[in-house]
Parts: sequence; C-alpha cells; structure tokens
Amino acid sequence: MAIVRALVLERQNELAIRDIELPLETGPGQVRIRIHTVGICGSDVHYYTHGRIGPFVLNAPMVLGHEAAGTVIEVGEGVTHLKVGDRVCMEPGIPDANSRASRLGMYNIDPAVSFWATPPVHGVLTSQVVHPAVFTFKLPDAVSFAEGAMVEPFAVGMQAAAKARIAPGDTAVVLGAGPIGTMVAIAALAGGCARVIVADFAQPKLDIAGQYQGVLPINIQKKCLSKEIAQLTDGWGADVVFECSGSPKAWETITYLLRPGGAIVAVGLPVSPIAFDVSTASIKELRIETVFRYAHQYERAIALIASGRVDLKPLISETFDFKDSIQAFDRAVEARPADVKLQIVFDL
Amino acid sequence: MAIVRALVLERQNELAIRDIELPLETGPGQVRIRIHTVGICGSDVHYYTHGRIGPFVLNAPMVLGHEAAGTVIEVGEGVTHLKVGDRVCMEPGIPDANSRASRLGMYNIDPAVSFWATPPVHGVLTSQVVHPAVFTFKLPDAVSFAEGAMVEPFAVGMQAAAKARIAPGDTAVVLGAGPIGTMVAIAALAGGCARVIVADFAQPKLDIAGQYQGVLPINIQKKCLSKEIAQLTDGWGADVVFECSGSPKAWETITYLLRPGGAIVAVGLPVSPIAFDVSTASIKELRIETVFRYAHQYERAIALIASGRVDLKPLISETFDFKDSIQAFDRAVEARPADVKLQIVFDL
Amino acid sequence: MAIVRALVLERQNELAIRDIELPLETGPGQVRIRIHTVGICGSDVHYYTHGRIGPFVLNAPMVLGHEAAGTVIEVGEGVTHLKVGDRVCMEPGIPDANSRASRLGMYNIDPAVSFWATPPVHGVLTSQVVHPAVFTFKLPDAVSFAEGAMVEPFAVGMQAAAKARIAPGDTAVVLGAGPIGTMVAIAALAGGCARVIVADFAQPKLDIAGQYQGVLPINIQKKCLSKEIAQLTDGWGADVVFECSGSPKAWETITYLLRPGGAIVAVGLPVSPIAFDVSTASIKELRIETVFRYAHQYERAIALIASGRVDLKPLISETFDFKDSIQAFDRAVEARPADVKLQIVFDL
Amino acid sequence: MAIVRALVLERQNELAIRDIELPLETGPGQVRIRIHTVGICGSDVHYYTHGRIGPFVLNAPMVLGHEAAGTVIEVGEGVTHLKVGDRVCMEPGIPDANSRASRLGMYNIDPAVSFWATPPVHGVLTSQVVHPAVFTFKLPDAVSFAEGAMVEPFAVGMQAAAKARIAPGDTAVVLGAGPIGTMVAIAALAGGCARVIVADFAQPKLDIAGQYQGVLPINIQKKCLSKEIAQLTDGWGADVVFECSGSPKAWETITYLLRPGGAIVAVGLPVSPIAFDVSTASIKELRIETVFRYAHQYERAIALIASGRVDLKPLISETFDFKDSIQAFDRAVEARPADVKLQIVFDL
Repeated sequence: MAIVRALVLERQNELAIRDIELPLETGPGQVRIRIHTVGICGSDVHYYTHGRIGPFVLNAPMVLGHEAAGTVIEVGEGVTHLKVGDRVCMEPGIPDANSRASRLGMYNIDPAVSFWATPPVHGVLTSQVVHPAVFTFKLPDAVSFAEGAMVEPFAVGMQAAAKARIAPGDTAVVLGAGPIGTMVAIAALAGGCARVIVADFAQPKLDIAGQYQGVLPINIQKKCLSKEIAQLTDGWGADVVFECSGSPKAWETITYLLRPGGAIVAVGLPVSPIAFDVSTASIKELRIETVFRYAHQYERAIALIASGRVDLKPLISETFDFKDSIQAFDRAVEARPADVKLQIVFDL
Repeated sequence: MAIVRALVLERQNELAIRDIELPLETGPGQVRIRIHTVGICGSDVHYYTHGRIGPFVLNAPMVLGHEAAGTVIEVGEGVTHLKVGDRVCMEPGIPDANSRASRLGMYNIDPAVSFWATPPVHGVLTSQVVHPAVFTFKLPDAVSFAEGAMVEPFAVGMQAAAKARIAPGDTAVVLGAGPIGTMVAIAALAGGCARVIVADFAQPKLDIAGQYQGVLPINIQKKCLSKEIAQLTDGWGADVVFECSGSPKAWETITYLLRPGGAIVAVGLPVSPIAFDVSTASIKELRIETVFRYAHQYERAIALIASGRVDLKPLISETFDFKDSIQAFDRAVEARPADVKLQIVFDL
Repeated sequence: MAIVRALVLERQNELAIRDIELPLETGPGQVRIRIHTVGICGSDVHYYTHGRIGPFVLNAPMVLGHEAAGTVIEVGEGVTHLKVGDRVCMEPGIPDANSRASRLGMYNIDPAVSFWATPPVHGVLTSQVVHPAVFTFKLPDAVSFAEGAMVEPFAVGMQAAAKARIAPGDTAVVLGAGPIGTMVAIAALAGGCARVIVADFAQPKLDIAGQYQGVLPINIQKKCLSKEIAQLTDGWGADVVFECSGSPKAWETITYLLRPGGAIVAVGLPVSPIAFDVSTASIKELRIETVFRYAHQYERAIALIASGRVDLKPLISETFDFKDSIQAFDRAVEARPADVKLQIVFDL
Repeated sequence: MAIVRALVLERQNELAIRDIELPLETGPGQVRIRIHTVGICGSDVHYYTHGRIGPFVLNAPMVLGHEAAGTVIEVGEGVTHLKVGDRVCMEPGIPDANSRASRLGMYNIDPAVSFWATPPVHGVLTSQVVHPAVFTFKLPDAVSFAEGAMVEPFAVGMQAAAKARIAPGDTAVVLGAGPIGTMVAIAALAGGCARVIVADFAQPKLDIAGQYQGVLPINIQKKCLSKEIAQLTDGWGADVVFECSGSPKAWETITYLLRPGGAIVAVGLPVSPIAFDVSTASIKELRIETVFRYAHQYERAIALIASGRVDLKPLISETFDFKDSIQAFDRAVEARPADVKLQIVFDL
C-alpha cells in the first residue's frame, strides 16, 4: 500500500483532491504506471451527480476516472512487451482470464470483470496505478498522451463498428451526436463506411461531427431523417443504424431508416424497456446487435490513430490541470453542447 | 385462361368448392403442375375467419392454399432441370429476379414478391397451376407428396435455423410449441443443435415435439423455464432462443434464458410492439435476428428429408380429400392442440 | 443494328479504328449510353499482344474495352432509376438473373455471365452501347467520368476487401504494387484497415501506392518483408495478406507474414498451380479466400469516391483522345512502371 | 511428485509398462483424476514407430496417450464446477490463458500450448493425472468412459465442422475414411449437413462410415467421385469438401467437386507442400479453411453424444486392459482397415 494524491468522490455531489492509500505493489504480470492524462466520462459525472449508476452504488469514497494514459515506471516479473519509460494507455476492465466468457474471447461480458471507477473499484484520477500488462498498450510516438486517453471512449465506437459487420462502402446512420455517437461515427467511417449520416437536434454537436470527411450531419429539428435517408440511398435505406441516443422515441421509427437485410446496433442504453416493432423489423429481416464496452479494440484503435486515419484531437474540448479537476467536473456537469471531451493532466 | 375446380374463399367465413377461371398457359421458364397435396397453413385459416391479415385484405374471391406438391405435366421453353412426370413441390413466392433484394440473394424480402393465397394472388387449392421452374423443386423418390407439401412450413424453420448461425452442438430454446415452433425445433436440431428445449403450456403440443430425439419439452405451467435452462447449462444459458409464440410476455424474460453472446431469433410476430429491455440484452451483448418467410431453403429442406435426417411425417395429423376440404378448414378452425398439420389431397 | 466507330482488335497485334455494326436497340430494362471515358485494362492489352487469355481465344474481330463511363441517351421500358442525361458507369458482366448463382447473390460466378471484351463479346471502346439498367449506375456530381471509368478496376479491389472480412483497425499486406495491388490497398484502407503494407521491388510503383495515407511501402529488394511485418506488429503478424503478384514465389513464404487466425486473399492468378504448405498454414489456422471479378461493389465503390474517402485520380497516368487509342494501347504495352491507368476519352 | 504405473515410450520402437515419477500435487484451479479409459491415437503410434513427428523429437522416455476419461479424486482450491467422484474427460492441451491467441478465443493456436504426449510433455496412459479444471469436463450419466475418451478425436471433427460454417442442409464430401475422416463425417452431419459423401478406396473403412444415416460411401476405385457428386447435386457441386486424406493427389482435383462459392476444409496434413490451382479455385470463388486441433469443442461434443444425436460407440474396435497395452499398440501398428479406435482401460 502507498499513499497517493487522488480525486476522490467522497459521496454524491462531493469531490475532494486528497491523499488516499492504494495498493501499488507491482506483482508478476503487472506494470506500474505514472498517470499523465485522464478523460472525464459521462459515467464519472453521473456518479458525481447521482451517487450511483443502476445497480452500482457509491457506498464508500472512490477515486474517479477510467480513460487514462501514462508512463510505465515499473515492470513486474514475466512482462516482456513493456519496459520502463514506455508511454501507454490502459483498458479499465480486468476480467478473469479463466472465465468461460474470457476463454471464448468475450472478456468484456465476463460477469466477474472488475472495472475502474465502478463501485467499489477505484479509478485512476491519481498519480500512479498498478495494472495487468496484458491490458496495458504501448503508444507509438505518433500518438500523444491526450490521444492515448481518448482510446477508451473510441474503443466503444470501435466495438459498435465491429458488431455492425460493416461491408466496405456501407452507408450508416448514427442517432445522437453526443460524445459516444461521435466516436461511433468516426469508428464507422474508419471501419469501412462510405458515409455516416449523423442525426441530432443540437446543432453545435452536429457541427463537431460534421468536421469529419464522410459525415453528413442532419438536424432533425429541421429535416425529416427518413426522407433524407431515402433520398441519399435512392429509396433503399441505410445499411446500418447505430442507435446512440438511448431515447425510446428513436426506436419507434428506427426500422424505417434501414434497407432490407440491414442492421441496428444498440449503443445507447435506454433506462427502461423500449417498444420494438418485431413485425416491421421482420419484413426487412433486420438484425439487431447490442454492445457492452469493448474487447480486443485497443490495439486496433491505437493503430488507426497512429496511421493518421483517425484524428480524435478535434474532440478534446478543454484540458485542465489535476489541481483544477473539481472545476473540470463542474464544467462537465454543465453539459455544454459543444463540449465533447474534457481531460485532466497531471503535469501540465 | 382455363376453368379449373378450386377451393375459393368467397368472402370472410365463406368457402366454396367451385369452378374458377385461371391463367394456365405455360410460358418460357415455367412449368404446369397437377396439384397432389396441399397443407393448410394458419394464414389460410386466418383469411377464412378474419378476411384479412394485416394490410392484406380479401376484396374478391381468392383460391386458398400455398403449401403444395404435385406432378409436372407441361414444361415451358428453356426449362432444363424438370421434365413431364417429375414429382415436385413449389415455393409460393415469386420475386422480381432483377430487384435489388433479389440480386443480393434476399429475394424473400423483395417488396415486389407475389405470394400465393395472399390477396389478390390466388393460391393452389386447385387442380393445376403454372409456376416458374426456378421455384419448382424435384422430389427424390424417398420424399412423398405429403412430405413435399410440408417443405413450405419446414422452410420457415430452416430460415430461422440459418439466421441463428448455429454452431455444431449448440443448445437452443424454442418458445411456443405450435406448428411453427415445432418446425423450428426440428430445423434447429437438423441444423446442428445438440438439444432443443421446447417450452409451452399445452402438454399435447409438447408431447408431439418431444417425440424428436434431442427435444427436451418443458411445460412452463409446471416448471420455471429459466431455472431449467440454468440447470441444463450449468448456469451459462442457452446459445439461441427462437421466439415462436408471438407473445409479448415471452419477450419480458427472454434475455434471462441466454448465455453471454447468445442470439434471439424472432419467428413469432406479435401484433403490436413488444417491450424490449435493451440494457439487459446489452450486458450479455445479445444479437437479435428477425426472419421473413425463407430464401434458398427448399433444396436444403428436401435434402434433409430425403436423407432421413428429418422426419416430418409425425406432424401430419390428418389428411382430407379435396371434396372434403371445407370440413378440413373447419377442423383447422377448431385448433385442436394435437393437430399440427392438416393436408388436402386431390386424388386420395 | 447500327454502325458505330470503334477500336477493333482485328487479330493478335492488329488494332484498327473503324466502323462496325453493333446491336443498339434499347429493349425493356435497358438503357443506351454514349460512351465518354474508357480505361485500358491489362486484359485488353493481353488480347492485343497474345490474341487470347486462357480458354478465351480471339476468333473474330472484337471491340476492346470494359472500364467505361458515359451518359444515358435513351431509356428502355420499365427503367425507373435512370433518365436521359444521367452520367453513369457500367458493370461489364451480364449474368443470367435466374441462374442458381445469381439467385444466391453471387452473379459474378454464374458460369453463363457474358462479359465485355471477352471473346466473342464486344467491348465498349465505341461511341454507344446498350446495357441492362440494373448494371448501370448513376454517378453523383462529385464523381467525374474519369473516376467513373475507374470504378471497374476499383471494384476488383473492393471484392477482395469484402472477402477478407476486415475488422476495423486490421493490418494488411498487399504483395505486388501493380494496378490491381494498388486498387486492393486503397480498398483495404477504405474497408477498415489501419495500415496496409505494400510490397514490391519496383520503386516507382511503391512511390505511387505510398501517396495514400496508411500505406507503408516496402521495397523487398532492400528489406526483408517478414522481418518488417514482425517489427510493425510486435511479432504477431498481419491480419490479412492480399496476394496480388500472381507469383508462385510469393506463396512460398506467405504463411510467415500472417498472425494466428489470419487470412490470405488470392487476387493474383498464377498461370500454373502453386506449391502451398497446408501444414504450416494449419498451425496458424489460416483462411484462404479467392475472388473472381466482383458482385454488388459498384454502388459501394461510387459511394466511397463520392464521399471523398477514396481518391483514384492519382492513379490516372495519362488520358488519350479516342483517335489516338492505338497509341494508347502501344503505350500500355510498354508497361512503364509508373503507369497505373491509361484512359481513352471520346470527346476530349 | 509421486510414483505411478504408466505406459512409457522409452525410445523409438520400445514401450514399457513401468513405474515413473510424475508431479501429482493438486494446485489451485486444478483437479486430480484417476484415469479410466485412454484411446490410442495415430500420433501415439507414430511416436512409437518413428520416435518423432515433424519437429517434435523423443529425446527422453515419455508416457503416451492423450485421449482420456476418468474420475475426479481431488479438487484444488477455487474449483467450483467439479467435485470428487465426477466422471470427466479432459482436453490434452494447456494454453497460456494470457497469451494473445488465448485472449482472442483461439487457445488452440497459442504457440505456447503444452500438449499431452508431445515431447517433452508426458501423456496420460498412467493411473493418475493432475489437470486444470477449466479443461476438465463432466460427463453426463448418458456418456460412458469409453465415449468420454472418444471426445478428443471427435473434437477434431467438430472443429472442422465449425470452420466449414455449414448451412443447414448442406451437402459435404469427406476425402479419406480413416479415423479422422469418419469423425469429420459424423461431426458434419451433426453440424447440419443433410448428407456427407465419404470417399475412399478401402471398402472396410467405407462400410464403417456407411453405417451412419446420411453418409453416402463412395469407393473411388470403382466410381468416379466428381461424376457421382455432379449427379447427386444436379451438376451444382458440393457445398463443402473436407480433405482428410492428406494426399497431394486429392488436392489436384478437389476444386471440381465444389459448387460456386463452396469451401474446402483442410484436415489432413500432407508431409510437403501440395500443388494448388489458385486460378481454378478463383473461378468458383472457393474458400479454404485450415484447422489445428480444436478450441471450445468439448462441451459441444459431449452435448451431442449425451443427447443421442451422435453415437461414437460403433467406432470402438477393441478394448484392451492396461496390462495388455503394448499388445494394443502393436495391434494399432498393424493398421487393420476395419480398426477405427483401440482403447485401453485401467480397471476392465
């Protein structure tokens, strides 16, 4: 155990920058990392404002943060692919490698997974962390710490793109231009789509997504989405719709947006069951995929960023020093439409 | 045009065996078939009792029947794979071969498809029919006319099994042991499942399904389905659930039956939108497939029947002579629990 | 029949620009097109220099050319998605829509397909052509005739990318930087690869491919390819290797380039059987895909070009007026390393 | 360490039943098993007669045997799904759960896998063994020890069937009716094939395979295989060919047996590279899959045997007592055509 400085969520609505005792011994197969950059995720903000997410309830002080990049400062026994000084980013979930789901390659849906900043597991808005080397990924020179800390949310988009089974040249629709919708749009383009229609009613969000070549932003307060899609696809429909709004309303008309044989990927999580018209979906033989976090996406995401094919830098709205991290969270609570990602840096 | 004897649905609730004028010229690429056996489908019965199914409304007298087998009696120009005397069964849907869906191999979801006994298209409870040769399939000696007329409903099961992407040795669940549920169970076993748990509350239906090796019938009035599945799969869950009941209630608990990464195939069509819990499905990253009729399943179905690996004969509950076909329909209206398939034969 | 001006291959080694009588009636489902641009393909050149390709032998004068774009000048009965004045490009192969392969969606491998400029079928280096509307594709304003005439060779790359089943972020290798290898590399990137290592020994070809972001050109006269791949992938190997050289030598070491579970896509066609080490491939459980032309790729290719995600213009090495088309072919025979695509234009 | 009785391969051609010292401590996550039945595999025999298989050379005495079933007699810390007294069978390969291949779900192609009876790793023709619980599978009451010891070779067939991606009702061909070919044929039928054409020139082997419903044995000394397949499939060709002979000659004509878009699964391992005609394969866009042992197949195999859908008992040619195991091996060396599987039992 060691004492480190951290951003601690003491209880709902109360954050503190203070010392906390954390286990920092570097065991076999592990590395110790000095944290450089941490992005603020909607879930961090939700724990701050609500003290819980679904069944996960904050019952004791918890360090926030799970989108992190840093530098390896110690390497445990048996670790060969990393060395001290390597710049890295980390997957926040640690599964049981011997669980049935993990053995099948689906470690993200291993029920035993332990995930940073999900009560009672501490997050990484702290100076150091010890982590399994197999979930720690080296950043090439071309990828900055800021981009490294973006790999986690981008991996969510990558998982959605992978589940969609995009065929090269597909036309996709993304419903909802929030941070996740934007990540999904970028991943869908990187994953083979010719164009991605991004639909929202908040113009500042659409303007950010619209910067990316291949994104067609549609303001659904001004235009009828299904008409626009019909026109863009000669009446055939989109190949894939990524539902990223989590809105039950989106599900009411979603089948109209798709071509026969198309796919829906449910990314947004509605708080209660949605009404789904099985019969209408059946006439087109639609497929519906669901996603949960990501598996095996970090290396792919890093490769896309490193090659220059994916540029996430325009999504970093503002960067705060760690000592200002409570202000950063309060800014995140504001939910300004043009804010995609706020990041906290330890040695700004 | 020619005048033939047929079972005509004059209007809702009124059937007549009478002469009717139908086009019977055998054009290029077509064959003329003398009908031998026709099965009664739930949709035939529904047009009889309700005069409509969804948007399809009976506005003029219509010949019923679309599950048919017979003998080729004339062969059109350019037909090479069939000859006079061949025993055959026929796909009831005729798509536009040049439609976008057809060219992609999904002719079943071509919106322009014309389907027997779907207003205003006549069915085949009549002595003769002219049909495209490419949708007419030769029956091997080992396959009887009765079995040939079962290929159509079995093809529905085959389509569901194909969509499930069964891995050899999978455990499946079929919700609903009606005719379609039973067909799906048989197709799922033929398609690679090690075992299929069939759930219903009607014991006579379960008894019929239970005759098949690999079917585990569960009476959900007596047993808790999710507990039984948990026990049979060591708490892991089923690989696939085929929802064949069309009941909104089935959808409420369906995600509990599945393993992480499992699939739901929606076969039953609920009359209105169902409540679906996206969040619970997402935690397991479930996939949902929908089906609409079938495509490319006839030859596969015939091959399975011919090789003896699929035996549909136990599902033929009773056979009627064509002159008794109104009685046959009235028996079908009764919906006796032990009745799976009633058939009408022209030269009994 | 009508008399039109055309580039006719009279016999091996003899080209003539002369009048020829061709059927130009616009039947139902067809359109008549005034040709604007035609690219020269290696197969056109091979017929010119050898008078045959495999079993296809030039026994009578034949119009060359199958990579074409132009303008619709007449629309046949029943055609709804095209109108006079539309700028279009065309698939050169016409399958039988009712063949078994076509019905399954694989019209490219329908043995009955008729293909432009494949004896005895005339090509389109002529002022006009009549073609099925379903194989004629409208070009958006953003896509020039020159790009439209590039869709055909790019579709070959798209088919290879589709067969590879690229997962977003994959690392691919392309063996051979000729015109097809370059098209495949571009399609692989558009189809989701993070990076494509292009290997050749001709530096001018590598320089052209190397212009594209995400392409890593490797001159195999100077560097060891398997070492380079090992270094770029931390010893894991590439996800996909596209073999585009057609060289038997490439197959000797191809398995060393791949990761466990990787895929080989055979695009280049060796003239005789190659030696393939099944045992070495098995230890990695490699998958090998083969491709034949393309199916369902034109709309996808056009969408990628129109959205700006694929830029084929750098591959157009020189443009000739139709009256100079024999010179264009003689230049193609030279096979200059930096020549990717030569095009012929009718109203330059 | 403990001293146990075992069948030891002292060196090439020399077997001994003698005591040997083996590590038998049951660590965390492990179980100790009393061996009941062990099948003799071709690889065991090959080490006996040749002292090596490819790069694996016998440099020290080694216990043979890897197809085993037995009873759990001790359970290590943390093991929850097994208890003392459970009848089980075991996967002989132990991968590194944290290797990249294992994390992707492909533990069979983890280069670090340690496999029973592969030098220098001891096999299980011995009274006891300690094994990871996650690779130890409970046998239901309906599955005997003899069948449990057949799960290993059947899993090879299951892996091949899984790789084929069989669509329900497919027609497959198995080239070579040896033990593996027969296992593959049974797995292909269980996995959804309507019929499996098994080709060999040894009639006794064909007679054994021919016992299974759905198998069509063809003696290729008497009949032309490609003609037979053409006739059985109306000239279309087989959906899948499983190459199980390992013969280079089989590869010369394999493409003629397949339909357009069909698949070859290479199961037999030729000793040197085979000649493969890429061009002919490409005209049909064939896919070639390779297999290496198996992953995730044990539970599936056991489920198929337990449900009665797969019966492997006819393949057990003779059972020997452990004290006669050298005679068992000498019988295996004879390679009698009608011998499929010889087994050794510890408490006969």
